[in-house]
Amino acid sequence: MTSAQVLGVLTAVRERGPLVHCMTNIVVANFTANVLLAVGASPAMVENDEESAEFAGIADALLVNLGTLSAERARAMRLAAASAREHGKPWVLDPVAVGAMTFRTRLSAELLASRPAVVRGNASEVLSLAGAAGAGRGVDSTVGAEAAVGTARELAHRTGGVVAVSGAVDQVTDGERVLEVRTGHELMTRVTGVGCALGALVAACCAVEDDPLLAAVAATTVLTVAAEEAAAVSRRPGSFAVALVDALDALDGPTLDARMRAVAP
Amino acid sequence: MTSAQVLGVLTAVRERGPLVHCMTNIVVANFTANVLLAVGASPAMVENDEESAEFAGIADALLVNLGTLSAERARAMRLAAASAREHGKPWVLDPVAVGAMTFRTRLSAELLASRPAVVRGNASEVLSLAGAAGAGRGVDSTVGAEAAVGTARELAHRTGGVVAVSGAVDQVTDGERVLEVRTGHELMTRVTGVGCALGALVAACCAVEDDPLLAAVAATTVLTVAAEEAAAVSRRPGSFAVALVDALDALDGPTLDARMRAVAP
Amino acid sequence: MTSAQVLGVLTAVRERGPLVHCMTNIVVANFTANVLLAVGASPAMVENDEESAEFAGIADALLVNLGTLSAERARAMRLAAASAREHGKPWVLDPVAVGAMTFRTRLSAELLASRPAVVRGNASEVLSLAGAAGAGRGVDSTVGAEAAVGTARELAHRTGGVVAVSGAVDQVTDGERVLEVRTGHELMTRVTGVGCALGALVAACCAVEDDPLLAAVAATTVLTVAAEEAAAVSRRPGSFAVALVDALDALDGPTLDARMRAVAP
Repeated sequence: MTSAQVLGVLTAVRERGPLVHCMTNIVVANFTANVLLAVGASPAMVENDEESAEFAGIADALLVNLGTLSAERARAMRLAAASAREHGKPWVLDPVAVGAMTFRTRLSAELLASRPAVVRGNASEVLSLAGAAGAGRGVDSTVGAEAAVGTARELAHRTGGVVAVSGAVDQVTDGERVLEVRTGHELMTRVTGVGCALGALVAACCAVEDDPLLAAVAATTVLTVAAEEAAAVSRRPGSFAVALVDALDALDGPTLDARMRAVAP
Repeated sequence: MTSAQVLGVLTAVRERGPLVHCMTNIVVANFTANVLLAVGASPAMVENDEESAEFAGIADALLVNLGTLSAERARAMRLAAASAREHGKPWVLDPVAVGAMTFRTRLSAELLASRPAVVRGNASEVLSLAGAAGAGRGVDSTVGAEAAVGTARELAHRTGGVVAVSGAVDQVTDGERVLEVRTGHELMTRVTGVGCALGALVAACCAVEDDPLLAAVAATTVLTVAAEEAAAVSRRPGSFAVALVDALDALDGPTLDARMRAVAP
Repeated sequence: MTSAQVLGVLTAVRERGPLVHCMTNIVVANFTANVLLAVGASPAMVENDEESAEFAGIADALLVNLGTLSAERARAMRLAAASAREHGKPWVLDPVAVGAMTFRTRLSAELLASRPAVVRGNASEVLSLAGAAGAGRGVDSTVGAEAAVGTARELAHRTGGVVAVSGAVDQVTDGERVLEVRTGHELMTRVTGVGCALGALVAACCAVEDDPLLAAVAATTVLTVAAEEAAAVSRRPGSFAVALVDALDALDGPTLDARMRAVAP
């Protein structure tokens, strides 16, 4: 995959400003919206069971993130995911903390039936979602992304979509192809919601790019390259978070050319 | 309207620190609270149906913002708006994404019966609220504020209050008078919640100023002038958002004198 | 109490990365998570009644903060607090705006039965929780922390834990000992959620330090010393909030040695 392809996806997001329906958690909603705005997408958070199905049919893509779940949100998510599938809108599942808790483990298994274009999670979450061992305790993974590649491929076969495993090196697969995204910075783990924002970026990219593998790799590259730029500005988490949003806004072709490292393993 | 009048309202907010009851969405609650604190108001978010009516009677003003609505929030909002009206407390309605979705369109029509001192929305939202065409898809307007002035005047006549239409040039009317606020910066649209924070600022100003037209114009001027100051510090959305809060804290008479452009159209 | 003891607690948090189960409000969830990450703890927000008891048994400590309460959250909080007690996990109660509203005043009285290791609030909240006069109107106290010391001691006797009263000078007591934390800066009151983040920091410290008095004083010292460092970088609330997170990340022994002022009154 080339930096020109990634730039093509980013440019399409900037020009078309896809409306991204985000069902996400109270911790990261603000940061997620600002990340989407920084790349030119249009975020809208609609999470109740009266409106979620209707809005999933209006928006260009849907993100379902299981953080700060509730029974009502769970109902609304099922409706929205089914509506997205029915309307042919791509949707992304971010199975936050799946495996650690019974309720959301069951919910995420149900949601898979609506065939997400992309599943994005850390290794523990992907392993748990696929029914394998390796469950994390909280929102952080207890194993590296590499350990989940085989399971991610099987899961991608089951969903007919893409599975993106976040880690120091991200692993993205559609079941056949596997790509490693080697860009990024450790500070991404010191700011809440960077992984969650990646799920939203993947949804934005899916809205403008039909190949979900390219969309997921483009989103991951955009965020991780921006993180490298931001880490060059600040090495402390508060100012890094601000610099990351600025870097997404500033991201251009030469920077992608210089930094991108998305390769076959 | 003069900059001295706007400074008078801002000074009253700083000196009296009005308690602003915010019922707002999960995306912007933090930014809204920080914007209110930056101008010296005291924000408190109370959104459940057990407490909202009680607290609307305690607070100095109420904001009802329909973002990330839920059935419970809708109930709590009806109770709070009715309580504010009963207790003679000014309240502001921000009909986020009204028109795009049936549930909130119906709710906002009901809320109008409790006679908000100010309705603040973008052109699509104001048109939808008034029953006219022009509904947006998400949270962004598909038409300019100027196109909604006639409808805004009619709506103001119906509510007996003020309608403030946000856009590149804001339009504020009490049905008779119309004022245009020409200050502001495009970066305001690149940070989530700036419009929502304006609704909260309007509520804070209504708590200290009996004329809702002056309150709405003062709030809009304060925020948009601060945005111009912030844009002079940073041209990227992450650091602009930080600079905007700083600029609200720093805002003074000479800056208002130099920048204010609130005029009859 | 010495700065070496505080550094010992901070170092233990950084090395062990305790998983802190936060049940907190929509206004401060993001800032709270970033504060916890800045000191090396691992935040996870789980607030629904399907999962809160299960997760309280998994996490190393629990924070229950009553801001933006709802009936569901109230149920989930009761279950989580009881589960924390049952599993021997320390938990912290932050009774936001207790006294101002009936529903949460009743809830907080019930929660005390699960014996929080630490209660952290402002003077109005602590007085209200103890059944004394002095209720605030909103989230801000109407009296100074010193005025609540006697009541705080009695409350600590009742809960068998520690009560930390925030103010210009913080008062921390286990019923017998009282310590004053004299560090801090007025800008802490100009950013939303600094007090709420302190509650989360106390929980993180309780996860690694068995003496809740030391844990509470250490958390308070860490946050207030970082605030002094941040105020040396920025005097405006937007950039101060960013600098505060950076300062928590940067905090070291020499800074604690130079600034710490936790003393018997």
